Amino acid sequence: MKPTHIEHLGIAVSSLEATMPFFEALTGAPCYSIEVVEDQKVKTAFFKVGEVKIELLEPTSPESTIAKFIEKNGGRGGVHHVAFNVENVEEALKEAEERGWQLIDKAPRKGAEHLMIAFLHPKSTCGVLTELCQQPK
Amino acid sequence: MKPTHIEHLGIAVSSLEATMPFFEALTGAPCYSIEVVEDQKVKTAFFKVGEVKIELLEPTSPESTIAKFIEKNGGRGGVHHVAFNVENVEEALKEAEERGWQLIDKAPRKGAEHLMIAFLHPKSTCGVLTELCQQPK
Repeated sequence: MKPTHIEHLGIAVSSLEATMPFFEALTGAPCYSIEVVEDQKVKTAFFKVGEVKIELLEPTSPESTIAKFIEKNGGRGGVHHVAFNVENVEEALKEAEERGWQLIDKAPRKGAEHLMIAFLHPKSTCGVLTELCQQPK
Repeated sequence: MKPTHIEHLGIAVSSLEATMPFFEALTGAPCYSIEVVEDQKVKTAFFKVGEVKIELLEPTSPESTIAKFIEKNGGRGGVHHVAFNVENVEEALKEAEERGWQLIDKAPRKGAEHLMIAFLHPKSTCGVLTELCQQPK
């Protein structure tokens, strides 16, 4: 695997409204996109620092994995996942499987910003929830 | 504040030896530097993906904050901090203080790779332990 760059950091937050001012001040730039990702039950807000996006993730339902992450984390948000940009997510996923890494997604699916994405389980990625993603063509 | 890029992600691990092969496979490149940072009681190993470094942090003592992080995290490692590269860490720290963000370091100190660094407390940074850092001159 040879990712071109870190595509984004996923950061869980209880409220976009409450946390966006901090990330605007930290990154020195306004949020450039807000998007609801229905099947992940989250509302996302994007910032950019250099080549890396910061994706804030607010749960839209208590069933959301982000809601569960925040609950497990004592009610606080934090870094939820790290996404690596690859040329071909299907091939990268195949390589991951061949290496014996545990896949959360057996096949790529559509994520925010029209990316094709697949998650690897943190049990086999040193505790770091790892996303592989590919830019839309 | 206007960071130029994310300088590195600090990832806590119990053992460099056990986890380096995974990060070599994930990043597609070997570790390029190993360094002991005495005052933080850690041994670090560096990888690079695009413009961002991945800094693995292995505790060299049970007193290390990294050892405590792993213990709190149920014995597992994970993303420990996110480091933002700024032109002038002293000015950035002053701005952080003026904004009412809680500082861990009141003044910049020397980190790994000869960076000048300062940490902000996750209580005021949405649960993300945030490092500000400046390249050596």
